[in-house]
Amino acid sequence: MTVCGCSLGKAGVVMQKFWGKTISVSEAVELTVKTLKEFIELDAIDVPIDRSIKMISSEIIKCPIDLPPYNNSAVDGYAVRSIDTIGATQLNPVKLKVKCSMDTGDPPDKCGILKDNEAVEVGTGAPLPNGADAVVMYEDSLRVGDYVEVFKQTAPFDNVNRAGDDFKAGEEVISKGTQLTAFHIGLLASLGLKNVRVYRPLKAFILPTGSELVEPGEPLQLGKKYSSTDYIIASLLKEIGFIEVTKLSPIPDHVEEVKKVLLNELEKADLAITIGGSSIGNRDVVYRVIDSEGLWVFRGVALRPGRTTSLGLINEKPVFVLSGNPVAAWAGFTAIIKPSIYRLYCSSPPIEPSIVAIVSERIVNVAGYRSYVRVVLNSNGFKYFVKPYMIHGSSYLSSMIRAHGYVVIPEEVEGYDVGEEVVVQLFTTRPLHFTQSIN
Amino acid sequence: MTVCGCSLGKAGVVMQKFWGKTISVSEAVELTVKTLKEFIELDAIDVPIDRSIKMISSEIIKCPIDLPPYNNSAVDGYAVRSIDTIGATQLNPVKLKVKCSMDTGDPPDKCGILKDNEAVEVGTGAPLPNGADAVVMYEDSLRVGDYVEVFKQTAPFDNVNRAGDDFKAGEEVISKGTQLTAFHIGLLASLGLKNVRVYRPLKAFILPTGSELVEPGEPLQLGKKYSSTDYIIASLLKEIGFIEVTKLSPIPDHVEEVKKVLLNELEKADLAITIGGSSIGNRDVVYRVIDSEGLWVFRGVALRPGRTTSLGLINEKPVFVLSGNPVAAWAGFTAIIKPSIYRLYCSSPPIEPSIVAIVSERIVNVAGYRSYVRVVLNSNGFKYFVKPYMIHGSSYLSSMIRAHGYVVIPEEVEGYDVGEEVVVQLFTTRPLHFTQSIN
Repeated sequence: MTVCGCSLGKAGVVMQKFWGKTISVSEAVELTVKTLKEFIELDAIDVPIDRSIKMISSEIIKCPIDLPPYNNSAVDGYAVRSIDTIGATQLNPVKLKVKCSMDTGDPPDKCGILKDNEAVEVGTGAPLPNGADAVVMYEDSLRVGDYVEVFKQTAPFDNVNRAGDDFKAGEEVISKGTQLTAFHIGLLASLGLKNVRVYRPLKAFILPTGSELVEPGEPLQLGKKYSSTDYIIASLLKEIGFIEVTKLSPIPDHVEEVKKVLLNELEKADLAITIGGSSIGNRDVVYRVIDSEGLWVFRGVALRPGRTTSLGLINEKPVFVLSGNPVAAWAGFTAIIKPSIYRLYCSSPPIEPSIVAIVSERIVNVAGYRSYVRVVLNSNGFKYFVKPYMIHGSSYLSSMIRAHGYVVIPEEVEGYDVGEEVVVQLFTTRPLHFTQSIN
Repeated sequence: MTVCGCSLGKAGVVMQKFWGKTISVSEAVELTVKTLKEFIELDAIDVPIDRSIKMISSEIIKCPIDLPPYNNSAVDGYAVRSIDTIGATQLNPVKLKVKCSMDTGDPPDKCGILKDNEAVEVGTGAPLPNGADAVVMYEDSLRVGDYVEVFKQTAPFDNVNRAGDDFKAGEEVISKGTQLTAFHIGLLASLGLKNVRVYRPLKAFILPTGSELVEPGEPLQLGKKYSSTDYIIASLLKEIGFIEVTKLSPIPDHVEEVKKVLLNELEKADLAITIGGSSIGNRDVVYRVIDSEGLWVFRGVALRPGRTTSLGLINEKPVFVLSGNPVAAWAGFTAIIKPSIYRLYCSSPPIEPSIVAIVSERIVNVAGYRSYVRVVLNSNGFKYFVKPYMIHGSSYLSSMIRAHGYVVIPEEVEGYDVGEEVVVQLFTTRPLHFTQSIN
């Protein structure tokens, strides 16, 4: 099943049987999108609107009714026929008979049809009574017994919310591929829809590999370490909001064991993300499993960190290969996996917070690579200044905890010099302590 | 129970029995924070780390071990005693005996103690063998049978990730009140922690009131409308990530009915948010219930839209009162409820995306109010331009779907003139179609 107009065919997928020339990040994303579109079946399901947050709409939703559904009063006051108020002023008020009162929830015919020189007292949101075409605010009137004195001339539809002013019947209100927000859910509710049709959640699993890895909570022998990159990627994947994520326990670096688990789990999933064993050293077994059991869509990418990020295909299921290094895995996920998954639906990831800052210490790139450089910010109260968090140490998680954000350097840029302005993507929960607010 | 040093006492809470002078947004936030701190009991619970995303850490977490836990090789190459490589050059290499090889996961004593002129072949991440103090990269060496020729002098700890370089044992890695991200979860995993102590989720319920309201999915009589603001606020509240939200069905505007449901539900919850009936008209019943059953912490605030946003206290439980108007409810939630809930934990909401834009059509404020003005953006490819989405129509949900974001105008600012630069808070899932990227 293809989604929207941006789908591409099977012929577009380039399979690389061997580690070839390293491709660029944008080429990797294109290949990934083509692969996902080709091999993932996107069925639609109905879900209750209050469980649809972050899901992706699988169809165009049109407004079945006008919103508001009827003309109604925008203020507290008196519904009138505007023609009756012609010439009304403070000194020469128009006197109208108040025949009835209406509030929100009342039917529009509650007070019958408004006749010459009649008025109906209305609350905000009350339907405009039949025959009325405007509302006079309390402030422009004086109630005297059964009558109201109107001090101001009104024009048709003064102080009236007109039917369809918010949304018109038939109008497209949610497009296909929209990731639903709280406001979309409110909109669906206001249309009277109890359920919404969305794409079913993707099923993904995370498979960490490495003989040195131990699950948290287990005792740690010297030379071993706790598995953590899998937890990070599983959490980032879950945060997308429409993916069911299963995190498996670490598998030692034995080709047969990795193969067995991978083949078995792939039967139940749409895609896999393996962590570790992504390079071509003695202990890197994941690539051997894909070599023997599948095909490479791409093997390595001009991304720093994240050079070994790869995509294979086993039994027609996409298998992403990420580094065991947490920072490299994050970069591969952020640069390639996340945007590609959104593009599978012709959608795009939510906008992330960013600020513009002035480089205070040179930020360096390697020619031809797209770099994700973690940075720290400072401020003099007027402007932000940015410098690299660390030159080395991309295996260190501390950089992701302590840096304020990161700068993406495109392939054609050698780096940013002191004094240049750059966009810094912010890690959203790192408060910038040096100011009241980042804005 | 008080959280961290910023707690304030009972005496600080000002109760207003009547609708008094309208207070400012910041005064309202201060009163709300004091009220929440005084009346909400913050117990801590242990949760598995992979279910702790967005939860708030209830204690300081210190690193129990050095990370990395042992010196290890940062590259593929040969572990050496740096003293043995003194004077090594391309022309005069030093020849060392390769006694053994080690990889990540091996214990550091696998190859015994390195003696004079010995080397151990190591993979990236392998523990530094006992006796070695540096690693020579493959690129700076040549393997000849059982020997390796080293072409470059090394200094102690060259190409070595030192124990504790990432985090040191005893170091504070997560502070109390931190809202946990994917990277914190990765960090907790790397420390070997299976569970983390966090504050228990808050229990909140949303109570929409209004005789005109009908639940989505039900038939709609003329004069009625579907309840939707409750869905928006419930979704926004759930997105905070540490709140259990129950959305009730709409209750008609009858004091006794509203009172019964409110009192009953409050027994099971930490706080309530009522929607609608927030003003002082005939049909506004929520305020009467608080008048008769409780106390006002504040009644109304200098916020536009959202003027009627209020906080009451019934049976020592905070009851927020929001407008039924979706935009006013959103503004009250965003300006007061959300930041106050974070401050209950001495925390702050995640940074939201924003950009700087040039005003292309005057953005107006009412003196003394803090205004949340929905805006649309445009761009000439170099700069962003911003103008109000609509002057009126704050009851219209379409503005929250179609606007690109909003501008907050402080109380002391009358407005922004054409040509001024302002910060625009972006609605994260509204793509800015006029450019490739918003950065």
